[in-house]
Amino acid sequence: MSLISVQEAENIVLKHTIDFGVEQVPFAAALGRVLAAGIVTDRCLPPYNRVTMDGIAISFSAFQRGLRSFRIKAVMAAGDKPVATEQVDECIELMTGCALPATTDTVVRYEDLIIKDGFATITIDSIRQGANIHLRGSDIQQGATVVSANTIVDATVISMAASVGQTMLAVKRLPHIVIVSTGDELVDVDVSPTPFQIRRSNSYAIQAALRQYCIEAEMVHISDEPQVTKEKINECLNGYDVIILSGGVSMGRFDYVPQALEETGVEKLFHKVQQRPGKPFWFGKHSATASVVFAFPGNPVSAFLCLHRYLMPWLSTTLGKEVRPKIKAILMDDFTFLPQLQYFLQVHVRVDEESRLVAVPVEGNGSGDFTNLLAANAFMELPAEISNFKKGDQYMVWPFKPLM
Amino acid sequence: MSLISVQEAENIVLKHTIDFGVEQVPFAAALGRVLAAGIVTDRCLPPYNRVTMDGIAISFSAFQRGLRSFRIKAVMAAGDKPVATEQVDECIELMTGCALPATTDTVVRYEDLIIKDGFATITIDSIRQGANIHLRGSDIQQGATVVSANTIVDATVISMAASVGQTMLAVKRLPHIVIVSTGDELVDVDVSPTPFQIRRSNSYAIQAALRQYCIEAEMVHISDEPQVTKEKINECLNGYDVIILSGGVSMGRFDYVPQALEETGVEKLFHKVQQRPGKPFWFGKHSATASVVFAFPGNPVSAFLCLHRYLMPWLSTTLGKEVRPKIKAILMDDFTFLPQLQYFLQVHVRVDEESRLVAVPVEGNGSGDFTNLLAANAFMELPAEISNFKKGDQYMVWPFKPLM
Repeated sequence: MSLISVQEAENIVLKHTIDFGVEQVPFAAALGRVLAAGIVTDRCLPPYNRVTMDGIAISFSAFQRGLRSFRIKAVMAAGDKPVATEQVDECIELMTGCALPATTDTVVRYEDLIIKDGFATITIDSIRQGANIHLRGSDIQQGATVVSANTIVDATVISMAASVGQTMLAVKRLPHIVIVSTGDELVDVDVSPTPFQIRRSNSYAIQAALRQYCIEAEMVHISDEPQVTKEKINECLNGYDVIILSGGVSMGRFDYVPQALEETGVEKLFHKVQQRPGKPFWFGKHSATASVVFAFPGNPVSAFLCLHRYLMPWLSTTLGKEVRPKIKAILMDDFTFLPQLQYFLQVHVRVDEESRLVAVPVEGNGSGDFTNLLAANAFMELPAEISNFKKGDQYMVWPFKPLM
Repeated sequence: MSLISVQEAENIVLKHTIDFGVEQVPFAAALGRVLAAGIVTDRCLPPYNRVTMDGIAISFSAFQRGLRSFRIKAVMAAGDKPVATEQVDECIELMTGCALPATTDTVVRYEDLIIKDGFATITIDSIRQGANIHLRGSDIQQGATVVSANTIVDATVISMAASVGQTMLAVKRLPHIVIVSTGDELVDVDVSPTPFQIRRSNSYAIQAALRQYCIEAEMVHISDEPQVTKEKINECLNGYDVIILSGGVSMGRFDYVPQALEETGVEKLFHKVQQRPGKPFWFGKHSATASVVFAFPGNPVSAFLCLHRYLMPWLSTTLGKEVRPKIKAILMDDFTFLPQLQYFLQVHVRVDEESRLVAVPVEGNGSGDFTNLLAANAFMELPAEISNFKKGDQYMVWPFKPLM
């Protein structure tokens, strides 16, 4: 069977995104979600001419005419209705956050005043008209879109939603995802394995990685029996939008997954990609339920690579997240890889003294060695058509941890 | 009052970390927490000589002696107890993930075999002794520390915990934090403000930012009354480890916070830092309850800067997280700032075509303009002793969103 390239595989995966619709959530609970609609201001920001220093508000023309001492007509706290001055030699003592009285146009701060016996005297020779005022609407006009759709809700977006009183936010609905492990050698984490068994870990790694999208995926284990495999896959197709399988997609006698997928009507869109790790990756779509199926190899590093190289970008595209440009880092060691496969090198990426993104290979014992991924923070994608990769060359990186 | 420098303020803040102890949590729920103890392997990884391809297991010496055709004595599935061969011309057909029978030492994959009538015939001329076997303990030995204490639990750590059967993880206990807003001009998000009021947004921004540490901070609002301020602050000191105030720390007549802090016995460690924004930042400690108090200015950008420049590093240090080295980015525009203050420039940091971290200023209307922070993703820290910052210079950046 001919292998397809990584780029072809990516293209096919990204062609099969799904629209899961929109839901409303309380704004403070929307952290990490993707906005389905922009956030529009219900009023100007600032909503009034906002005083930015504690002090007095005066009319600048009075200062220009030589007046330095002003009778304090009233003291305003932030939140108070503005008090108008009636005489040019009057001022209003007011605090940061106050709405400026319409009869005044300049604020003089306490540091430049002497206040005594109900009068405020300005101690400096020059003041600027309009000083210490944040003008109404100078940040943003009423009805403007401050945050656009497809933005990820972070602390700054939540703050803006609060400012404009948008208590509910329209966000993209998330897919229901099930993570299916296969293989009779796998036991659950709280079970003592025999000397020939290992504990189930892939499903937990995938589940944890999906939480960055606020997705709480469910888990199912399927034993190596053809009838059970078929029945369980059928249940998953009916219950979930996305099925992530790990294991059971190789050539082995007990790899019942490809057959079960076929028999349940999942259309194979590709099987096997020109890459290491993760060559046996299988991807398909079920027309009847519109579910997509990502069947990853059971090898932990292979599954982790396929997750970050294909499924995460699929999720981003599906949710319409602003697409982050692909980034390249500088390889810090010569590296040779002869097979005609796109190689995903485990690297540790950091910012060096010259502000360059550099990638140091973290190599272990091949694709089975998951312990390696503890020290690495990204995969570096090395093109299949090159064999000798030189220190100083730049290649694309796929981070699986925050890089900084 | 003399201002202290940003570095002095940082030093004082980081000197007042607190040990909140340790708690046990189910491993899959520990995502984002900080490990209090290392993860130790309960068995070697791999725990057995693990077959990495589907095919047959043979004794290499038989191949060397010229044997090419092997009688299939048994078929093993992954998880099965290994079946020993008894004759040199016997093989075991087995699958990826199987434990290798002790009588064999080499695996030949299906692609290099013809299987017919109970015999497997090798179709290639040369095989390698030990091929397609991931040796027991080659990744890690039993009893080794695979993940060290103070590591942040991510998907790779969860996977490792699962692999070694560590169902509970010891993680650093989190502080109880309360976010206190002050100022009578503030109304809650679901309330219609008068034309002189604004909605409470700082508390929500801070709460959202703290979630990256898995902290769910509570919120309290205090009206501008001296007695109420004192009582509420006293309650907070008794109920929480960390009090974050926003607003009420300037020179205004209704800024009752500094006095209330003093009267409740909070020791002022500093007030006012040589920086913009965030100059009025107040930091103190309450000996009786061991609580720390971060009193930020009410201005949203000032509060957000102080949160990321002081409180987040305090949390990292308190929780003993591995300290990420401070990173510098390249300023992409000339910038002038004359006052003798450390200026925190709002920037958008990205990786350019040469893999360099570059920072483009995103300037708005000064510290009050929070809308600006929607387009920025970091603060760039510009030293107080310099006035003219040149394109191409490198300065430290404080990201408040993921940079890539």
